[in-house]
Amino acid sequence: MTEIRVGLLGLGTIGTGVARILIEQQELISRRLGKTVRLVAAVDRDLDRDRGLDLSAVRLSDDANDVVTADDVDLVVELIGGYEPARSFVATALEHGKHVVTANKALVAKHGEELFPLAASNGVAIGFEAAVGGGIPCLKALREGCAANAVQSVYGILNGTCNFILTKMELEGADYADVLKEAQQLGYAEADPTFDVEGIDTAHKLSILAAMAFGSKINFDEVFTEGISKITAADIESAAELGYRIKLLGIAKPHAENGEVTQVEMRVHPTLVPVASQIAQVSDSYNAVQVSGDFVEHTLYVGRGAGERPTASAVVADIMDIARVAPDGVNHLAPPMGFAEAERRELKTLPVADIECEYYLRLMVQDEPGVIASVTSILADHRISLEAMSQKERHASHAVAVVMLTHETTEGNLQAAISRIVGLNAVEDDVLILRKESAVL
Amino acid sequence: MTEIRVGLLGLGTIGTGVARILIEQQELISRRLGKTVRLVAAVDRDLDRDRGLDLSAVRLSDDANDVVTADDVDLVVELIGGYEPARSFVATALEHGKHVVTANKALVAKHGEELFPLAASNGVAIGFEAAVGGGIPCLKALREGCAANAVQSVYGILNGTCNFILTKMELEGADYADVLKEAQQLGYAEADPTFDVEGIDTAHKLSILAAMAFGSKINFDEVFTEGISKITAADIESAAELGYRIKLLGIAKPHAENGEVTQVEMRVHPTLVPVASQIAQVSDSYNAVQVSGDFVEHTLYVGRGAGERPTASAVVADIMDIARVAPDGVNHLAPPMGFAEAERRELKTLPVADIECEYYLRLMVQDEPGVIASVTSILADHRISLEAMSQKERHASHAVAVVMLTHETTEGNLQAAISRIVGLNAVEDDVLILRKESAVL
Repeated sequence: MTEIRVGLLGLGTIGTGVARILIEQQELISRRLGKTVRLVAAVDRDLDRDRGLDLSAVRLSDDANDVVTADDVDLVVELIGGYEPARSFVATALEHGKHVVTANKALVAKHGEELFPLAASNGVAIGFEAAVGGGIPCLKALREGCAANAVQSVYGILNGTCNFILTKMELEGADYADVLKEAQQLGYAEADPTFDVEGIDTAHKLSILAAMAFGSKINFDEVFTEGISKITAADIESAAELGYRIKLLGIAKPHAENGEVTQVEMRVHPTLVPVASQIAQVSDSYNAVQVSGDFVEHTLYVGRGAGERPTASAVVADIMDIARVAPDGVNHLAPPMGFAEAERRELKTLPVADIECEYYLRLMVQDEPGVIASVTSILADHRISLEAMSQKERHASHAVAVVMLTHETTEGNLQAAISRIVGLNAVEDDVLILRKESAVL
Repeated sequence: MTEIRVGLLGLGTIGTGVARILIEQQELISRRLGKTVRLVAAVDRDLDRDRGLDLSAVRLSDDANDVVTADDVDLVVELIGGYEPARSFVATALEHGKHVVTANKALVAKHGEELFPLAASNGVAIGFEAAVGGGIPCLKALREGCAANAVQSVYGILNGTCNFILTKMELEGADYADVLKEAQQLGYAEADPTFDVEGIDTAHKLSILAAMAFGSKINFDEVFTEGISKITAADIESAAELGYRIKLLGIAKPHAENGEVTQVEMRVHPTLVPVASQIAQVSDSYNAVQVSGDFVEHTLYVGRGAGERPTASAVVADIMDIARVAPDGVNHLAPPMGFAEAERRELKTLPVADIECEYYLRLMVQDEPGVIASVTSILADHRISLEAMSQKERHASHAVAVVMLTHETTEGNLQAAISRIVGLNAVEDDVLILRKESAVL
């Protein structure tokens, strides 16, 4: 029976989960594969910590070269995270003819376009299911399950920390800062939560999904990205009164000319979704990815977006996919980004000003005659019509919150109107702009 | 560039959808695959009907042998449905060294165990993603995406007709018979709806999911199956008052001894699910499959369970998976049932009497003193405790409906109690028994 020898880079949370599956589930994996997957080596700076696992049969080391260049390793699992040294280790492993599986979305989003051809030219595979949607096999579903479709949109709740915070804020009527603190205490948010709460992690994942959906190169730097840190309990309540729930969504759509996709729209921002929609029910640290295609219509994939065991499940699924074709059938796997490498295109990103949306606006205005008339008159100048408007009770600062829901307009047009509106004496500068999506399942 | 030549058996709704994708999406498919998939032949009894497609490059025939034994066909798509002659055609195609893709759940559930080894011994593949969950790539998710897991349960809303009827009954407070008639007029239900509404179609699909989840042989005949035809608008209302929605669920769970799965529980019946659960939100003709595993925790896959375009999407995904490894890498595909064929076991089905459940009981009783006391005393004899009970307004027949929600007990114990209860003079014979599942996402 063929044996695939695995080396782990990183024995932190996810690395421990991967080691646990490979050890505890070895027989099940063999029954499914008809091959053996064996953990032979692991690298970590901390080799003394008790991980609740018998690692006596595993060669432990604190030097990555003991895995990435080792003769007895067929497949390297990179679970260090971040850009460097992860990139160098992965590149070295590929150059030494080792398959690579990673959960590192930052690495794939930023350096994928360098690593995919490197893998191909060395005749090895690279898998990264765990980089998007944690345990959910959403990349496989998009790349293979929906492969017959021209993808029409991808939506995702892709960051468990943000979804946990937004869910808690709604359930408890609590403010952002308090819930963030609780999430940090529970280990659901990092000490520096910027990557999560400002939408950067979601943008990493969305850029991978978009490129896979539309056959484009990954353009992480061009994702329009806003986080959740400006949302108040009052906004969540206002949205609920209007029939919506606020989720941090990643959204990708193709824009075509003459039937050919020429531009890709990519944006990450807090989004109002209808409260009765499927995606609105995805709560706590759960993630969800919705893929819509011209034949399959809408599909939705839900599961745990993070955590030792779910993420490890996705890593080992990739290992098994590669083990199935190893040693000499790598070209029998679906290509990593779902299109033959030569067929992937440099597609432009839709300029931010051209994004079309319905908007939720929260303005703080002085409670004096004529203010609302001035605001709505500016919106009318820009041909922005309102679907709903409500005025909230007086704020501590003697300003009142006015919430507006607009019909569809472009981001450029909306921003032009907003810059005129904040020029009004009676309107404070910090207008909160959220966006609405109705086309969710 | 390698070319895969496809022959279609059946140009009905789904067959037309498959032909449409293969023709209209040919370039996209080639960009993804790096190979060409070409529709070369199609067989149908009716060759005159206008299908809105240019089939001039396709060899049309009314003789299945023009596809299943034809030299110029590499892969046969079976879309005839039913047991025979579908089984014979598929067997002949496999024996002639042709890959087979089918959407026929009845065929796979009943004859899969004959066809899988036949495919293997002829060095060809058999794909049936479209047989379960329509367009949702749920078999791929279970077989490959969750492959690292010992599966703990599979739940599914697997029949769009039943889900459409139950959704309509709830929204309109309408009775079963009226909604069925409407569904038939809309083409959502067959003239003879038995297979759908009595749960047989769901049982076909569940038996496939269960065998794939637990590595057992397919045991369709042993699925405990009840349909939706006895549910009234009043039951849906009673369930809602208790916080539940009624869905026709297929449920499969493993039962282990000493850590080894020895029995498989399989049942299809109308099920009360918490109204706030994800699966309760799956409405109309949508399907959903929930897979829970020891590492991935809960995952849920949602999409259209039927229809020309979604089902065709799943069929073509299978074609592309096979085309990717053709002509000589069939053993690089995941095995059809997710386990190496030699490792699949004859697992017993859990006897119906041993199923443990919480129950919803609807009894029609004469409105006279002591009846409820007699009923609850019998339940107490059988150590069945009640979670909730409500008595409804007087029925036309001068009986009143009493609804009870029990705590967990075995089916055998419940049936013993029920047979004593219907022996009471004041209780009518037709007790409606529904079952409740809380462990849904």
